[in-house]
Amino acid sequence: MGYPIAGHLARRYPTLVWNRTPSKAEAHAKEFGSQPVAFAQVAQADILFTCLPTSQEVHGVAEQLLPHLRPGTLWVDHTSGEPELARKTAARLAEKGVSYLDACLSGGVAGAVQGRATVMAGGSREDFERARPVMATYAAKIVHVGPLGSGHAVKAVNNALLAVNLWALSEGMLALVRQGVDARLALEAINASSGRSNVSENLFGQRVLSREFPNTFALGLLAKDLGICARVLEAAGTPAPMLRQVREFFEIARREVGSAEVDHTAVARLLERWAGLEIR
Amino acid sequence: MGYPIAGHLARRYPTLVWNRTPSKAEAHAKEFGSQPVAFAQVAQADILFTCLPTSQEVHGVAEQLLPHLRPGTLWVDHTSGEPELARKTAARLAEKGVSYLDACLSGGVAGAVQGRATVMAGGSREDFERARPVMATYAAKIVHVGPLGSGHAVKAVNNALLAVNLWALSEGMLALVRQGVDARLALEAINASSGRSNVSENLFGQRVLSREFPNTFALGLLAKDLGICARVLEAAGTPAPMLRQVREFFEIARREVGSAEVDHTAVARLLERWAGLEIR
Amino acid sequence: MGYPIAGHLARRYPTLVWNRTPSKAEAHAKEFGSQPVAFAQVAQADILFTCLPTSQEVHGVAEQLLPHLRPGTLWVDHTSGEPELARKTAARLAEKGVSYLDACLSGGVAGAVQGRATVMAGGSREDFERARPVMATYAAKIVHVGPLGSGHAVKAVNNALLAVNLWALSEGMLALVRQGVDARLALEAINASSGRSNVSENLFGQRVLSREFPNTFALGLLAKDLGICARVLEAAGTPAPMLRQVREFFEIARREVGSAEVDHTAVARLLERWAGLEIR
Amino acid sequence: MGYPIAGHLARRYPTLVWNRTPSKAEAHAKEFGSQPVAFAQVAQADILFTCLPTSQEVHGVAEQLLPHLRPGTLWVDHTSGEPELARKTAARLAEKGVSYLDACLSGGVAGAVQGRATVMAGGSREDFERARPVMATYAAKIVHVGPLGSGHAVKAVNNALLAVNLWALSEGMLALVRQGVDARLALEAINASSGRSNVSENLFGQRVLSREFPNTFALGLLAKDLGICARVLEAAGTPAPMLRQVREFFEIARREVGSAEVDHTAVARLLERWAGLEIR
Repeated sequence: MGYPIAGHLARRYPTLVWNRTPSKAEAHAKEFGSQPVAFAQVAQADILFTCLPTSQEVHGVAEQLLPHLRPGTLWVDHTSGEPELARKTAARLAEKGVSYLDACLSGGVAGAVQGRATVMAGGSREDFERARPVMATYAAKIVHVGPLGSGHAVKAVNNALLAVNLWALSEGMLALVRQGVDARLALEAINASSGRSNVSENLFGQRVLSREFPNTFALGLLAKDLGICARVLEAAGTPAPMLRQVREFFEIARREVGSAEVDHTAVARLLERWAGLEIR
Repeated sequence: MGYPIAGHLARRYPTLVWNRTPSKAEAHAKEFGSQPVAFAQVAQADILFTCLPTSQEVHGVAEQLLPHLRPGTLWVDHTSGEPELARKTAARLAEKGVSYLDACLSGGVAGAVQGRATVMAGGSREDFERARPVMATYAAKIVHVGPLGSGHAVKAVNNALLAVNLWALSEGMLALVRQGVDARLALEAINASSGRSNVSENLFGQRVLSREFPNTFALGLLAKDLGICARVLEAAGTPAPMLRQVREFFEIARREVGSAEVDHTAVARLLERWAGLEIR
Repeated sequence: MGYPIAGHLARRYPTLVWNRTPSKAEAHAKEFGSQPVAFAQVAQADILFTCLPTSQEVHGVAEQLLPHLRPGTLWVDHTSGEPELARKTAARLAEKGVSYLDACLSGGVAGAVQGRATVMAGGSREDFERARPVMATYAAKIVHVGPLGSGHAVKAVNNALLAVNLWALSEGMLALVRQGVDARLALEAINASSGRSNVSENLFGQRVLSREFPNTFALGLLAKDLGICARVLEAAGTPAPMLRQVREFFEIARREVGSAEVDHTAVARLLERWAGLEIR
Repeated sequence: MGYPIAGHLARRYPTLVWNRTPSKAEAHAKEFGSQPVAFAQVAQADILFTCLPTSQEVHGVAEQLLPHLRPGTLWVDHTSGEPELARKTAARLAEKGVSYLDACLSGGVAGAVQGRATVMAGGSREDFERARPVMATYAAKIVHVGPLGSGHAVKAVNNALLAVNLWALSEGMLALVRQGVDARLALEAINASSGRSNVSENLFGQRVLSREFPNTFALGLLAKDLGICARVLEAAGTPAPMLRQVREFFEIARREVGSAEVDHTAVARLLERWAGLEIR
């Protein structure tokens, strides 16, 4: 997702790009007019953006970049990460006078490409207001949800709700199909009713009923987010039998579907296998 | 919900109405120009509509009305009911040449009043096509989901998904609020993201965050629907750990919130009590 | 289990035996001195015993035998069956003056062979006292748990507790083994502690840790019993999230382990597969 | 539990005792002939025993005692604690040449008084063999389950199994009682069958059916152990839907039963409230 986002930035602002694979940065420069730089040079930016698989990578990059960072820089982290580790990273950056926002993205690659992503950000109001107009180049909805770590926490809960809907709808559709209900029509009815969700409206027909299961959001990454949500729940100490349970189910699914790279909608296939039935 | 629906009918068709409480039928006549009749006379209608608390009441009415029914009548049942009992009722009606559709409604009282309900119907294609233009007077979406019983089954699954979303979102919001996240802003972010649902968009802010919990759909009725869903799952024989679990939770909630008459969104209050925290 | 039980009976009482496969009855006669008879002749017995896979078979046999039954006969059903269907069967038998006990057995084939089975019986006190001395030929513990259907209900709950322990212990052992704990020693410690159970003491070491998984009690039969337990819970209307959940897990297991004929302890293998680890 | 254990020690070995409340240490001296000492003096012991509410207290005591500790001392920790924190404490102690065993106890206060406790210990074989004969003064079963942290991990899993049995048996008994089964007789039958456990044999009749619920093991402490088990599961990364779920249920129970001080068997009372029924 970082690629199209940096593209939107480059159209409006001078933009330095770095990637572990230099050819990617060069391709980006060609496509969007950004400027590929050596690793240490990204510390010259006023606002520094990261969008990495996990908070561990972000923390590692922060540690490596620390000697080069300048006071007054703002670090905007678009990774779907861990609130606790983000707070540690922020504390390290603060030693150099660098402030930090955990600014999770939603909307998928498609949303990022279209410049219609959603941002849910944790951190200080001042830092948020500084980053907001810049993020507006690629985000249609930008919300400051709370203090440091809140962006990651809300994103983790959001993705757990996505997982809950994917699992529960698959269960329900299987029971209906078994009894002779037409899957497409049942979905159409649900989508005009109180049980509808983003999953029923935008994922299930297009990915499961179509039997396409296109690889856009890996099951392994969603399982990772459920792990983050589990730690958010643990930190909160609030009972949450359903969100805990869905995480176990996705852990099982991640191991059973053969590859963590498959699309998250493949959990429907696991439930189909258990039911001995396809949702069609 | 039967009251506004019969009102829409009366504006377009000659409409006979009967209610156990005669004053209700008379009020309806005054408001919509329908014609209150004695119980047995409703058998004179071409299409007969019922909208009762459970399938047991529908079956009871069918048994009582049986001697008066005429061949060729179509019985459209808008009750959120039991597939199995509906098939028994249909079999009894068939003895008198009366056909039957289980045609569940979604959209709440508000949807019915505005003539924008959703209908998910089970039964024969022919009966469905006969009822469709008449139902169009109060429904914006009318779907024929499958054979007899399918309407009830899809409605039960839909309401189980509603219950899942209500419960899971409450769990997630409590964990977020505990950690300093602003509930309204978190909901705003989720509603622009992949975890959104009808519950997050149309119920949670208006009923839970507002602390209003208006009585529009009783928790006791939703718990009843979850029982129907449990029997749909049992009949299907497909594993469904999440939909089974949510039913247990709502059974607990029904007994803990003091009254089955309270709005279904009151389950959020039970989770709040368990967490020692309000979602604000 | 019927075979060794009828053997114990034959050593003390004149015993008529019938089996769908006549050679089995003949083998029994040779081994224990029982008398093989034609189906209708079993109705001549004072006390009639059945031990069949499900209540459906018992009901079928009762219907077929009905014309031959004599008033005053007592029917002792050792099947692990359904309370509700048992009550129907009892009602049919009552039409001919035959009384009925649902008298479930525990202790496995080994317990039956050794004459040390447990009987949990539902029905009238009088019928129970009549059958008790006869059942004492093969049972070490004979308990009258309540009215008709109670024997089946207690057996179903007992087997659900067996399932719960098998599943939970497998989960716990996997987590321990992953972290370097010795499985045999952990089990030894648990067996001297508050978490011990029949499963930890008599099944887990002998069947799972030994990697033998001997076929003595089929997973498919235990899954059937969990289905009966689910219906007992449904009839009771008491919330039971854990017993409901374990049933779903065993339904999944039944479909995943390849064959319903494998021993019930094979669920540990499924959890091992999910964990990517053997319990050794 | 530390009190009777130090009593057994004092009968066989010169024993120094320290307690935050000096009068307790003095009472112990009078009863068992131990020697009350100032805090720092306990560092003079060859083997040092702790039995505290949580690992946090143990770690705090270790930090305070560190300046006084001598190389070659063995620290035996009988706390039901956290594997991870125990490893940290052990690392700190190692800096002073002190070795450490996490040696959890089972058997309750009664078992400790009778000198029949169970010890499940993690740490080196050498340290274990050194402590074994000393622990034999109060323990009937002493098991070395694995490396450092293993004792705590096995204890946490054991207590989770206790919790699972308490919860599941309560659910099952409620459903049976609702349907007219005699609770005592059902328990008697289960205790002679495959679903029996320590809970069914030694707790349920004596504490729940008796309606006594004597305060011997606080619900709050069992809930704490379930939290430790949750972290053991998290560290293992093995799916465990049932052990995760039971922890959520006990978290709910802990908050609903009014006081974390009540006996753990009080969860049966919560399930009774949910069912609207007493288990008698």
